[in-house]
Amino acid sequence: VNLDGILPPVATPFTSSGEIDLAALSDNAARLMRTGLRGLVVLGSNGEAPFVDRDELARVTSTARGAVPADRLLIVGTGAPSTRQTLLATRAAAAEGADAVLVLTPSVFRSQMTADALVPHYRAIADDSPVPVLLYNFPAATGVTLPVGAVEQLSAHPNIVGVKESSGDVAVVADLVSRTPEKFSVVVGAAASLYASLVLGADGGVVAVANVIPELCVRLHTLVRAGNHGDALALQRAITPLARAVTTDYGVAGLKAAMDIAGYRGGVPRMPLRPASDDVRKKIAALYESVMTAA
Amino acid sequence: VNLDGILPPVATPFTSSGEIDLAALSDNAARLMRTGLRGLVVLGSNGEAPFVDRDELARVTSTARGAVPADRLLIVGTGAPSTRQTLLATRAAAAEGADAVLVLTPSVFRSQMTADALVPHYRAIADDSPVPVLLYNFPAATGVTLPVGAVEQLSAHPNIVGVKESSGDVAVVADLVSRTPEKFSVVVGAAASLYASLVLGADGGVVAVANVIPELCVRLHTLVRAGNHGDALALQRAITPLARAVTTDYGVAGLKAAMDIAGYRGGVPRMPLRPASDDVRKKIAALYESVMTAA
Amino acid sequence: VNLDGILPPVATPFTSSGEIDLAALSDNAARLMRTGLRGLVVLGSNGEAPFVDRDELARVTSTARGAVPADRLLIVGTGAPSTRQTLLATRAAAAEGADAVLVLTPSVFRSQMTADALVPHYRAIADDSPVPVLLYNFPAATGVTLPVGAVEQLSAHPNIVGVKESSGDVAVVADLVSRTPEKFSVVVGAAASLYASLVLGADGGVVAVANVIPELCVRLHTLVRAGNHGDALALQRAITPLARAVTTDYGVAGLKAAMDIAGYRGGVPRMPLRPASDDVRKKIAALYESVMTAA
Amino acid sequence: VNLDGILPPVATPFTSSGEIDLAALSDNAARLMRTGLRGLVVLGSNGEAPFVDRDELARVTSTARGAVPADRLLIVGTGAPSTRQTLLATRAAAAEGADAVLVLTPSVFRSQMTADALVPHYRAIADDSPVPVLLYNFPAATGVTLPVGAVEQLSAHPNIVGVKESSGDVAVVADLVSRTPEKFSVVVGAAASLYASLVLGADGGVVAVANVIPELCVRLHTLVRAGNHGDALALQRAITPLARAVTTDYGVAGLKAAMDIAGYRGGVPRMPLRPASDDVRKKIAALYESVMTAA
Repeated sequence: VNLDGILPPVATPFTSSGEIDLAALSDNAARLMRTGLRGLVVLGSNGEAPFVDRDELARVTSTARGAVPADRLLIVGTGAPSTRQTLLATRAAAAEGADAVLVLTPSVFRSQMTADALVPHYRAIADDSPVPVLLYNFPAATGVTLPVGAVEQLSAHPNIVGVKESSGDVAVVADLVSRTPEKFSVVVGAAASLYASLVLGADGGVVAVANVIPELCVRLHTLVRAGNHGDALALQRAITPLARAVTTDYGVAGLKAAMDIAGYRGGVPRMPLRPASDDVRKKIAALYESVMTAA
Repeated sequence: VNLDGILPPVATPFTSSGEIDLAALSDNAARLMRTGLRGLVVLGSNGEAPFVDRDELARVTSTARGAVPADRLLIVGTGAPSTRQTLLATRAAAAEGADAVLVLTPSVFRSQMTADALVPHYRAIADDSPVPVLLYNFPAATGVTLPVGAVEQLSAHPNIVGVKESSGDVAVVADLVSRTPEKFSVVVGAAASLYASLVLGADGGVVAVANVIPELCVRLHTLVRAGNHGDALALQRAITPLARAVTTDYGVAGLKAAMDIAGYRGGVPRMPLRPASDDVRKKIAALYESVMTAA
Repeated sequence: VNLDGILPPVATPFTSSGEIDLAALSDNAARLMRTGLRGLVVLGSNGEAPFVDRDELARVTSTARGAVPADRLLIVGTGAPSTRQTLLATRAAAAEGADAVLVLTPSVFRSQMTADALVPHYRAIADDSPVPVLLYNFPAATGVTLPVGAVEQLSAHPNIVGVKESSGDVAVVADLVSRTPEKFSVVVGAAASLYASLVLGADGGVVAVANVIPELCVRLHTLVRAGNHGDALALQRAITPLARAVTTDYGVAGLKAAMDIAGYRGGVPRMPLRPASDDVRKKIAALYESVMTAA
Repeated sequence: VNLDGILPPVATPFTSSGEIDLAALSDNAARLMRTGLRGLVVLGSNGEAPFVDRDELARVTSTARGAVPADRLLIVGTGAPSTRQTLLATRAAAAEGADAVLVLTPSVFRSQMTADALVPHYRAIADDSPVPVLLYNFPAATGVTLPVGAVEQLSAHPNIVGVKESSGDVAVVADLVSRTPEKFSVVVGAAASLYASLVLGADGGVVAVANVIPELCVRLHTLVRAGNHGDALALQRAITPLARAVTTDYGVAGLKAAMDIAGYRGGVPRMPLRPASDDVRKKIAALYESVMTAA
């Protein structure tokens, strides 16, 4: 699985009655695929995955597959509270055409989610999964940390092909790169650290802001690969404020508002999440204008 | 809903192949109902609720109903990541005979789970639920706090009848008692604070250790109601070490091991949780002996 | 050292030029000693101890001693970052007439402040101190926890005579009472848990709000000792909102504002702390009126 | 103040009786000054500053000044709990020849250490200080965060010339660089992020491991300035494990043990810190061998 590039963790649109809006998803996916993105990730954290039931996951995967050409990647988030639920979701995603699955660390009984529990969990999934597995560490969201040593151990499994690291700590990214095999992919989930992570050896990025400004995220990746550090750093600085607004600052509701502003079909999240307020929409619109002007 | 008493949040037994063991559940429930417990809570945190799918929830509820007489309470945990999933689980529980539902605060996007999101979430559920709703605050597990002010506000809803408070902070318990109507129930989820909470006005307790030593937990409640503070405090001190072992110290695996030791059918949790080690089983057995001797 | 009662951790008044106002301190102490308080604690956290240099500590102690009769207790906070500094402060306090010293856990390199470091620290101080030593655990302020097991171990030292527990967790208070010798004192530092702690076996309380409403705090203690639980609990509820305002909510500045309102000499804290705003003063005045009316 | 380079936050050696060992300090300083280091920082966190009294600070400063040539920098840590104490320490450091002072955020009443308190604190110090002031943000140690916005505001003060950022978050470093004037220095305190921070625009580093392997730290800085990213990144990876061992993993005791191993005079920290165990010394020796071989 070649992850050298940028993939957006796509938002899941809903109809006004709260059903999944497959038409809007298909539109967004098709438009994103007209840029230089490496592929799509559906049902990551930004896709409100925990709010989406297993039968809905199958429909989302199948719809996305229809929009992602065979030479790009369709990755599906299938992490669930238990190993058993994760296995079932993984099989469903593979059956509908996923190229790989992205498995967030389980976090329900988080004080017990040490390497002793996480390593057997990931092995059980990788043994069973019909498609390659990507590990996913996002401590700020889950309260659980997948230690670098555990990733090192798991990277020896033939069906575990990479890790998405969203801690934002570039020293961890550097550690992961140096302690895993060459062919094992390290992608970063924190857009504010994208430039630094790529410089430190990450393959690519799965960053929420790539739902809004995919071309600029791709350009940043291209600049780093070309060794153009000055322009890459300037672009990183231009992107960071919007990247933060659609994640840390305003969450999924902010991301969806930003997509509306950029001409994608965002809409509102499922409850208990609240829609972005008018005030937040204005702030995001200003940040979007600002990055489009600067870049 | 009269919650003046003790209810165990019952563990969910599984067969060796990982299916729900309804026979074991039924046995445990029947035996528990031969004590002075006020009723049962199924699919709380200790019931590994997030690992249990909605169709399984229906079977667990129906089985438990078969064992709980009409004059005792069957409460079902139905909290889920989204409002929509919680509504569906609540309807399923009510259809299978639940007397009330216990709804843990959602916690997926926890930084956004403020009162602004939680109050409309609970209102939507209470408006729709065929049975009374109990709020459930457990910050150590969820990373989310349901503020006392939000409980006060929600206590005005005719279908919201109480709160389970598991922060362990008795000042919060005292606040809840004084800021909600007389008929609104406050039950405590932290066994180590059970005596203090009852003295401060809590109605009862939903405590994991009541799966193991139900008679002693009931006796503690009875002693407080009788004004026998000295004996109640001594019993609290005897119970606390085991209560901690089956929650904070060793989690659900420890609770299930303690149930095995006490003659109930515990078994092992679903993965990614690990079974209790032999060493932990020995420690728990010693604590069990100790409390049975002391009391 | 008999700690059966209430002691205020007295605020340290400053002149407008930022020097210690010994006259104001003396006035406050004399007035407090006309109530039923068991004594005074100077240079606790609420006394801005870390802002007060060692030569100032000597003057504060000597001034307070002048106001505290021989049959009441003068306790001086002498905890400092290093063991050496704590020893020097302890000797200074003893030389000026302290009956005992209160030693907050050191917290500078807090990740290393485990029992392995804390136990030898306290032993070194107790071995050297001319007066009895009280341990002091206040995790919310220091980020360091003195484990119950360490207190148990230290309670065997002939010159360590008690502990002030300010975690607010009454289960910890109960543990401390049951795991230390009868003559070892347990006092509680969290006013919101005062009633519950006394019921669970604590000797007394060292609570900030006793700088403002000493008579009511003493009455609460007396009611519990008389077995009058109903009135005690009602009084606890009346006191709690003001108690929180002068600690958690508005800190030392809030405490000093409340003292001004109650006719004591509070004034403003040393920088970098800010004085209470007018808005905060109004809120505190309302809470003070409310508790004086209710009680 | 030109901070383009590497400065070690030097450890403070003590004699066996716990006094400051000025001879050892002088030896270390002289030897460090024979490398390409930009200067020295005395009495930073790694210098056990909170354990060092004001009269000792004067002697440490004066001794270090004797070893640091006029064309290198001597920076003294003077942050103290109160503004007043910080002013006194700052004047003492300036009187003994400090080129600048490094002022850690106060942290005693940490919940109140917001920008509203920190900005006036730093202004008061900068107004009074005879020498330039560097801000210092180290959230993991203090529990307090100096927000980027506050640094931006303070960077307009003529006597505030830079910031040491030790959060380890390179996105914050990048923000600081882009939101402060060109002549305002940004130095990084987290060695694991040194390479990434320099790439993102930091001037230099004040990193504990530069007490042990100063030449390698200087070489890393030189490689980045020369645009040799490949070698710089490889060197960063070689340095990181030792850098972590002497900070996060084993603290000041570990740093002093590493100095002993490298031929400097480390010794043991003041109590309550514990000396490094033999086991830790062996681990550190192995890491030191490893980085010396690799580099």
